[in-house]
Amino acid sequence: MRSSLASVGAELLPHGSKRETIGAFLLRRLRELGVSHIFGVAGDFNLEFLEQLAETPGMQWVGCCNELNAAYAADGHARTCGLSALATTYGVGELSAICGVAGSYSEHLAVVAIVGAPPLADIERQNLMHHTGGSGDFRDMMTCGAQFSRAHARITPQTAAIEIDRCLISCVREKRPVYLQLPSDIAYLEIEVPSDSLLVDFKSNEWTLRKFESAADEVIRKSASTALLIDADVIRYKLSEKVTRLAERLRAGIAVMGTAKGAVDEDHPQYLGVYSGAYSRPEVRETIETAECLIQVAVRFTDATTGSFSQKLRNRQTIELEAWRARVQGEDIYGVFLGDALDHIMPDAKTSSVQTKVPAHVQAVHEPPLETISQKWFWKRIETFLRVGDVIAAENGTSLTGILGVRFPRQTTLIAQALWGSIGYTLPATFGSLIGSPKRRHLLFIGDGSFQLTAQELSSILRHNLKPIIFLINNDGYTIERLILGATRAYNDIQPWRYAELCGIFAAGTPFISQKVQTPDEVETALQLAEQADCCVFIEVVMDRMDAPESLRTLGRIYARQDYGSNYNRI
Amino acid sequence: MRSSLASVGAELLPHGSKRETIGAFLLRRLRELGVSHIFGVAGDFNLEFLEQLAETPGMQWVGCCNELNAAYAADGHARTCGLSALATTYGVGELSAICGVAGSYSEHLAVVAIVGAPPLADIERQNLMHHTGGSGDFRDMMTCGAQFSRAHARITPQTAAIEIDRCLISCVREKRPVYLQLPSDIAYLEIEVPSDSLLVDFKSNEWTLRKFESAADEVIRKSASTALLIDADVIRYKLSEKVTRLAERLRAGIAVMGTAKGAVDEDHPQYLGVYSGAYSRPEVRETIETAECLIQVAVRFTDATTGSFSQKLRNRQTIELEAWRARVQGEDIYGVFLGDALDHIMPDAKTSSVQTKVPAHVQAVHEPPLETISQKWFWKRIETFLRVGDVIAAENGTSLTGILGVRFPRQTTLIAQALWGSIGYTLPATFGSLIGSPKRRHLLFIGDGSFQLTAQELSSILRHNLKPIIFLINNDGYTIERLILGATRAYNDIQPWRYAELCGIFAAGTPFISQKVQTPDEVETALQLAEQADCCVFIEVVMDRMDAPESLRTLGRIYARQDYGSNYNRI
Repeated sequence: MRSSLASVGAELLPHGSKRETIGAFLLRRLRELGVSHIFGVAGDFNLEFLEQLAETPGMQWVGCCNELNAAYAADGHARTCGLSALATTYGVGELSAICGVAGSYSEHLAVVAIVGAPPLADIERQNLMHHTGGSGDFRDMMTCGAQFSRAHARITPQTAAIEIDRCLISCVREKRPVYLQLPSDIAYLEIEVPSDSLLVDFKSNEWTLRKFESAADEVIRKSASTALLIDADVIRYKLSEKVTRLAERLRAGIAVMGTAKGAVDEDHPQYLGVYSGAYSRPEVRETIETAECLIQVAVRFTDATTGSFSQKLRNRQTIELEAWRARVQGEDIYGVFLGDALDHIMPDAKTSSVQTKVPAHVQAVHEPPLETISQKWFWKRIETFLRVGDVIAAENGTSLTGILGVRFPRQTTLIAQALWGSIGYTLPATFGSLIGSPKRRHLLFIGDGSFQLTAQELSSILRHNLKPIIFLINNDGYTIERLILGATRAYNDIQPWRYAELCGIFAAGTPFISQKVQTPDEVETALQLAEQADCCVFIEVVMDRMDAPESLRTLGRIYARQDYGSNYNRI
Repeated sequence: MRSSLASVGAELLPHGSKRETIGAFLLRRLRELGVSHIFGVAGDFNLEFLEQLAETPGMQWVGCCNELNAAYAADGHARTCGLSALATTYGVGELSAICGVAGSYSEHLAVVAIVGAPPLADIERQNLMHHTGGSGDFRDMMTCGAQFSRAHARITPQTAAIEIDRCLISCVREKRPVYLQLPSDIAYLEIEVPSDSLLVDFKSNEWTLRKFESAADEVIRKSASTALLIDADVIRYKLSEKVTRLAERLRAGIAVMGTAKGAVDEDHPQYLGVYSGAYSRPEVRETIETAECLIQVAVRFTDATTGSFSQKLRNRQTIELEAWRARVQGEDIYGVFLGDALDHIMPDAKTSSVQTKVPAHVQAVHEPPLETISQKWFWKRIETFLRVGDVIAAENGTSLTGILGVRFPRQTTLIAQALWGSIGYTLPATFGSLIGSPKRRHLLFIGDGSFQLTAQELSSILRHNLKPIIFLINNDGYTIERLILGATRAYNDIQPWRYAELCGIFAAGTPFISQKVQTPDEVETALQLAEQADCCVFIEVVMDRMDAPESLRTLGRIYARQDYGSNYNRI
């Protein structure tokens, strides 16, 4: 027996309504916003939704080995495909995933987290259900989700349509996760919903935008020099082109925070490099810190990207742009969308690129092969291996610091968590990105310590016959931690696995290439093989446990001083 | 430079105080309460604590492959060893672990969750630190932890000693997790702390205990028959002996909830079996539901243990005992500890056991071997394989329902999550239990779907040369879900691995036996080998994907009806 219920008022149904089950409506909305894959793990409170999903054309379920990996996959997917969706079951599933969702919150990714919840009647009667805290409390889970989402709702028949639309709009506009708790017994309930598609726009307030334009104009005109400092939202909102055009109009140098590497074309003559406070290259530091006007594009100065807050900005004028607010010389102006703000700074100035003072990047050179594979040699070699359009995933530790020193070809996308920094993230994130962009070449760099956290998701990569090139940097434990504290302590050791044999365990007939390399010559041979391969390539690269990019050594010292403070007397 | 600070008032230091660093004090307290192992993953905000741990005699760090597994290991450890401790790093670590801690909360395990936090000064200044949400908010993580703990505190120099003692006392007395957030820069700070050991007692209020005794006395005396229904807290507070003596004094039958199997000796003549509402064996059901007086010992009727609330209790008198409160005929009496309550019901009655009406359990018989391994045959065979004192871990699904139908020898401990039900839990939980009780024989039964969630922790079992017998029940996907919905749907499929080869990947020289068995004869051979082995034994047992214990089929039907309700028209 199906019933019907209008869950929005008539005023919100301007172009008519239709009857649809709650689950089908949610799935239709996701399709309208471009979602074609939902990541997650099946559980009894979401099986009915997965049934509905299986019957939705254009929508594909992507089962993962566990929920944390699924959340990481959804995050990686959002980085290259935009809006992403995750479905877990109540309690056990959503909490297993929450570290991944919190990462999406921290790093500004649009992920719709759908939680299949116990039947609404059991929730409202506070019954002691499985997958709960066993106390009749059903607010505990959402309280957690609420910490890492911009909007969240328990879907009920009487509010389903408006709550779903509200949360999805917030997710798309604000690039943060949202939570939708879908009680299992109402997914099949028919309600009245809007028949129109949901169109989410990015529109500024016209009046405040004009106000911003004139304020910015005034600031720029009186500045002898201007520079742009860029952070991750430029990538999230796909504004790289606008940033570049703005820099050209202003003849300004552009630097990126470590959280935004790849946001602008590194071959562009105005590209300066990565700004990391006192740890930047001197030319980058000087340009950013002493430009008369600095335009900060959604910049967050975090300890990780500034060498523990070593930035010393001496700019006399500042324009600080955030996704939905601008601040000119300290005055907040609301309702200004970042994309519009970029367009409205000196909109009529002539666009032309100039060569900044930063010397051209030195082309990577092949050093004469050594006996062992050093970090220094490896990252130089990788620089020449990169191609236009690659997706590069780099795990925190030697991999991310290594890749931050590599010059990217055009249209490179970097998948990394320089802020959230949850180790193990990049393997499932690579999987998630590949699911949406299987034709783009994906390179993954991950250390052995990190790999062990999420290793099973390699099986999902093989299950779907995806074709990344995976570099497993085996340096025998948590090298990043060794550089901070406990270089030889057991707590930084891990069990040595036969990593290169794992593909064979997981492949189930899917072709793959897997090998372990210990010398530069072997790396060369492996790279040549990888260039031609049409399958997943897994290369275990053995390096010394205390070798690391110089910048990681520096970071290790900075972190030790920052983290343990004056009471720690061994530094 | 070290400073000293009195962090408790003089009135709380009755026998003197001494100076100790905050980290060392916390470690000393844990040692005093019997903790000898701390599970977790190293991260820069807890490294200084791990340094202190490494210098603490009698304390051992147990690094796990990831934090969720570490939380499961701590939970398993608490089940056989009592108080357990977990150390993670801020944000990424604690949120990765929270599903495991929530399971400990739901199922009443005493776990001290220690979170290495950013420096206190950075927290109080709301700096944008790595491993945070990137917004300057430092309340978000603890808000999550608070949902699943009885006490929690951010440790500061001025309150460290009292907060640590408060949380540890709560943990031990209430058998629930507690959270202690330890900012990284104060672990090395010296403060003034109590020099005495922390002794946590379990004392009732004398006056209310007498009140309880007389109320219980009155109820029991006017009841022609009494029965006992037991739940998990009896195991958590180690009260099996007291429950048995009480049953003998009252000549009462004892049944256990599915969450408490193993709580009483199943050879005891008064043991009835598992009570699960309408799905109990008829004699068990009748005895429990119609006894004139029912003593409920910390019972929680959950959907999972009652077949969706099918219990129909018609007892005229009830005594409901909880860990720290009793309720006699509806009247709450506070301050009565469960152990004392059990002792004070008819304390002077003569102790003698009687044969209850429940027929003796039929001894398991070897059926003639079949071609394939059926669930029915397998669990009967396992019954005769069990030994007195075994620890049995059984994963939700076919494993747990299978083992619930098996008669246990004396002193069997069952590790399972019949309430929380987070799949993948039992492998790390077995590891955690083995770390504390390596001499007890551990058997693990886990399905292939569940195994994939946490598979890497097998490497920790081998790393420590622990010797469980692991039965990996390979039935090709999520059979428990197939029995609820989507029997042939892709969302219940998983990637088939070469499970039996995983030990070879992880062992790094540790001896092991690993094999895949497909017939009852092969099972027999494997069991004989396992009986004699002095190493980790891994047996992949192949079964049909739709075969299951009859009770799981029933549960599948119950869940489908419960979860999808009247709107689901396909049942």
